[in-house]
Amino acid sequence: MANKTITAPLGFRVGSASCGLKSDNALDVAVLVCDFPAVTAGVFTTNKVFAAPVALCRERLVGGRARALVVNAGNANACTGPGGLDDARDMTARLGQSLDIPAEKVLVASTGIIGHRLEMGKVLSGIDAAVANLSRSARAGRDFARAIMTTDRSEKMAFRQIKVGRSVVRIGGVAKGAGMIAPNMATMLCFITTDAAISSSLLSRLLKRSVATSFNAITVDNHASTNDSAIIMASGLAGNATLKTTASAGKFAKALDGVCLDLALQMVCDGEGATKRMDVRIRGARSLADARTAGFAIANSPLVKCALFGGDPNWGRIVYAVGSCGVDCNQERIDCKIGPIFVFRKGKPVAAETSRLGKIMAGKVVEFTVDLHMGKSQFTCYGCDLTYDYVRTNAEYHT
Amino acid sequence: MANKTITAPLGFRVGSASCGLKSDNALDVAVLVCDFPAVTAGVFTTNKVFAAPVALCRERLVGGRARALVVNAGNANACTGPGGLDDARDMTARLGQSLDIPAEKVLVASTGIIGHRLEMGKVLSGIDAAVANLSRSARAGRDFARAIMTTDRSEKMAFRQIKVGRSVVRIGGVAKGAGMIAPNMATMLCFITTDAAISSSLLSRLLKRSVATSFNAITVDNHASTNDSAIIMASGLAGNATLKTTASAGKFAKALDGVCLDLALQMVCDGEGATKRMDVRIRGARSLADARTAGFAIANSPLVKCALFGGDPNWGRIVYAVGSCGVDCNQERIDCKIGPIFVFRKGKPVAAETSRLGKIMAGKVVEFTVDLHMGKSQFTCYGCDLTYDYVRTNAEYHT
Repeated sequence: MANKTITAPLGFRVGSASCGLKSDNALDVAVLVCDFPAVTAGVFTTNKVFAAPVALCRERLVGGRARALVVNAGNANACTGPGGLDDARDMTARLGQSLDIPAEKVLVASTGIIGHRLEMGKVLSGIDAAVANLSRSARAGRDFARAIMTTDRSEKMAFRQIKVGRSVVRIGGVAKGAGMIAPNMATMLCFITTDAAISSSLLSRLLKRSVATSFNAITVDNHASTNDSAIIMASGLAGNATLKTTASAGKFAKALDGVCLDLALQMVCDGEGATKRMDVRIRGARSLADARTAGFAIANSPLVKCALFGGDPNWGRIVYAVGSCGVDCNQERIDCKIGPIFVFRKGKPVAAETSRLGKIMAGKVVEFTVDLHMGKSQFTCYGCDLTYDYVRTNAEYHT
Repeated sequence: MANKTITAPLGFRVGSASCGLKSDNALDVAVLVCDFPAVTAGVFTTNKVFAAPVALCRERLVGGRARALVVNAGNANACTGPGGLDDARDMTARLGQSLDIPAEKVLVASTGIIGHRLEMGKVLSGIDAAVANLSRSARAGRDFARAIMTTDRSEKMAFRQIKVGRSVVRIGGVAKGAGMIAPNMATMLCFITTDAAISSSLLSRLLKRSVATSFNAITVDNHASTNDSAIIMASGLAGNATLKTTASAGKFAKALDGVCLDLALQMVCDGEGATKRMDVRIRGARSLADARTAGFAIANSPLVKCALFGGDPNWGRIVYAVGSCGVDCNQERIDCKIGPIFVFRKGKPVAAETSRLGKIMAGKVVEFTVDLHMGKSQFTCYGCDLTYDYVRTNAEYHT
């Protein structure tokens, strides 16, 4: 079977190891290495409380190139003060040393419990062990995906292959995160590799764009974690003419969108306790900001989330989530659809067949569409239901 | 026992009846009548999707006087189009007719299911029946409180008596609402009577002020309903010198604050599925808006709410709720306390006794304090836990 992991793009090797941060000898440290200085871009949490590895990556990505990254799961190295920053630096120094590359070219990410210093003895020996089994195999790629998991129920991977000119370009991605689910096991992490030749500024722009409609369009419980990071490294080994402008990069951009959205939807479906997904389509908003606000008001509404869980076509909860979120709207213009069926039109309820609505609400993916008829902006976001298991996991978890 | 209901202030009579909007012959229509044109003020939902009765009250309160109000529970008369507005008008006309007062001096409120027209035959005969048993008794006051309930587990009343000069002034209030819990049974309604002599503009100002720190400082699930209304009527029969300036009205204002906060806290504790309350105190914010945003970010966080339910002193969830809500802050300055105990100070975790924290978290009311050290603004808000029962009620409820 073809390799469809992050080791599929040419020029990348990964290794992982178990160093004891997770129980049960589960993999908890992983490294990703590019054979050459890779054009690299990153998007990080907007939380003003951000973790040490995020601070370090932001600093190191100014140059736009990196050679490697190291990730640990089980401890987020967040809210750990200046000592935590030293720890993050030491992780990159250790990896740099064993690969004979400068620490400044090494990135770092962490996920797990907040407010505790890393057990650095374990982490450093874990990095050594991960380096010892560096490989280009698909199996190593899958192990990487598993090593970065915390409360995830399964590993998350996505892959696209396209032709750019005559060259085959591959994009592989891994992610972890079941929303900002388990507070102390939280965080969305995403690492993408590609062998495309692409300029640093374009890669950065395209990543931001893809993230806006994927990772930034999902919600499980409305929390940006302290550690959220999405990093893409491009080896340039595909041999394509270097992509420099958005116009020339159409196919690549679309493939990158696809990888990011695939991973994002896997996260939503793995949302803590989630059994169903909702796709919320806002149309006719005055601005993109309004469309986003309205979409997330619905997707984050505990009432809508419970109705989704219960399979109840409760459109009233959708309409007043929109009305109360502060966006520019007029109730006499609002349309609301569940699946393809109008339930509210121009401020009036529409008599809809209850049995048909019930069937739609029973699906694994339910689409809610709201047209504000105020302008031309639109946005689609993705959420999940609120279930007993969400409460159980988050109430019974103990610090 | 002294009457401590909304019929305690001089000049008010109330009546209620069962007209069949609720099942089980429960009371579902109530009327409140003042013997004289009462100085009246109201605060209404900020939801842009607002119900017909809200639209009508806003229009009629311009004059600052009213004689009566009629309330029904079981149907919100929201999202009902122009026909719904006619129904609301017809309710006030019927009450006006039987009392021989102009319909324009009658206010109206509704709560219950959204998107269905009222069964006006039932409602109008209910109004007649309620008028037939108008009374000044405490029992009638309690029945009123019961008649306006929807998913509330118990009726909500508050009372204060103060001296203004040599005159005794009474303030009685009733409320319904268990947060914006049950979507189709939603809404916060509050009706307050007083016999204070007070100017219209002052009454309006004081009500707004009290609502800001009470009803607008609570959250169960972060929804402003389509029907939220708080209305106060002042008969002027207490005989005090008419209150006209904020300075002269200190005692009255404080008593009104007390009535509103009492009612608001009763609502939080009656929040759908709630077993515990959290008091979230934000200190040192750059602005009041920031303090409010940060407070509600904590009180609405599903993770914090689950931790409260589980009794877990999970301060990480509190700190990153603040970090992610967009307020001006710097993680190196943030302090966080659970009860009186520092758990995070100037960006560093504080080693706290787990057993003491566990005991605090096990209480029925838990206080979280966050000092941002960015300015002088502060705000306190009140929330409840997120429990299995919340999910059960809102998932199993069917439209």
